[in-house]
Amino acid sequence: MDTHTTDEAAVSSSPPVAEEETPWLTAKEQQFWRAHLEVSKLLDYQLGRELQPHCLASNDYEILVVLSEAPDRRMRMTDLATATLQSKSRLSHQITRMETAGLVLRQECPGDRRGLFAHLTEHGWQTMQKVAPDHVRSVREHFVDRLTPAQIDAMYAALAPIAEHLRTLRGRA
Amino acid sequence: MDTHTTDEAAVSSSPPVAEEETPWLTAKEQQFWRAHLEVSKLLDYQLGRELQPHCLASNDYEILVVLSEAPDRRMRMTDLATATLQSKSRLSHQITRMETAGLVLRQECPGDRRGLFAHLTEHGWQTMQKVAPDHVRSVREHFVDRLTPAQIDAMYAALAPIAEHLRTLRGRA
Repeated sequence: MDTHTTDEAAVSSSPPVAEEETPWLTAKEQQFWRAHLEVSKLLDYQLGRELQPHCLASNDYEILVVLSEAPDRRMRMTDLATATLQSKSRLSHQITRMETAGLVLRQECPGDRRGLFAHLTEHGWQTMQKVAPDHVRSVREHFVDRLTPAQIDAMYAALAPIAEHLRTLRGRA
Repeated sequence: MDTHTTDEAAVSSSPPVAEEETPWLTAKEQQFWRAHLEVSKLLDYQLGRELQPHCLASNDYEILVVLSEAPDRRMRMTDLATATLQSKSRLSHQITRMETAGLVLRQECPGDRRGLFAHLTEHGWQTMQKVAPDHVRSVREHFVDRLTPAQIDAMYAALAPIAEHLRTLRGRA
C-alpha cells in the first residue's frame, strides 16, 4: 500500500516531476514490501486482539516485558520511551492508564534529579507471568510456527543488520 | 521485547502457572522474533520521520496511496477502515485532519445509503505524486536495498502465506 511499481508509474496519468530519476520498486520488490507491511500490521492487530481478554493492549504488554527485564524491574521514563520507541508524552499517557490498573508505579528516585522512574508492581509482574504463556502461543500460531527453521535463520540474517542500521539512526545504537 | 526464551523462563523467580506446558520460544526464535518487531517498529518510525517535511504522517500517506488506487479515487469509509486496518473512529479522526489539509473530501454518495465516501482531492493526488519519489527512496535506503534479490524472494515466499492467514483471520480474505 505504500509505493508505486514501475508499471503503475508508467501508466500513471500525471507522472511525478522527478519520475525519470525515481528508483521505483520493481514488481517483485513491491510485492515483498507490501507483504512485509501487511504482516507487520496484521500481526500486531491479531496479537493485540488476543491480549484483550487479559485487558492489556500490545503496548501495555511490551512495557511489562521491558520493565520485567530491567534491573530492579524499574526504568527511567525517558529510557523507557526510548526502549519502546514512543514519544515521552504518549508514554506518559500510557503509564497513567497502567498505573490506574495497578500494573506500574511512577516514583521519583531519591538523589536522582533526572526525573521519574516507572516501576513494575507485583501485580504487574504476576500479570505478565499469567499472560506470557498465551502470548507466546499466539506468536507461534500466527508467525513463528509458520516458518521453517531454515527460514527463521535466513530471515534473522537478513533483518539483524537492518535492525542495527535503524537503531543507529534512532540514536540508541 | 515480547516473549520469554526457554532460558529466561527457566531462571524466572516465580514461574508462570502453566510453564510446563508453555511452548516458549527457543533462543534463535526469540532472537528472530525481536528482530522482526524491531525492524517493523523502527522502519515505521524512520519512514514517518522522512515524511514529516511533507507534512504527512505514515498513516496519511497510506490513505493517499489506497485512495489513489481505488476506482474514481474514492472509497466507502468502512472499506477504507478495513483496507488500512484501522477502527472506524480512528479513521474518522484521521480523515477529518486530512480534510482540513485539503487532501481528501468526505461526501455522501447519491442513491447509496450505506454511508460516506472518502474522495482523494486533486491536491491530495498531486501531493502523493510529489511525495512518492522521496518515499520510495526511503524504502530502498532503509530496507529493500539492504537485501539481496535472493533474500527478497525468500522472504516474500515466507511472508506471503502468513499475510494470507492473517487476512483470513481479519475477515477480509
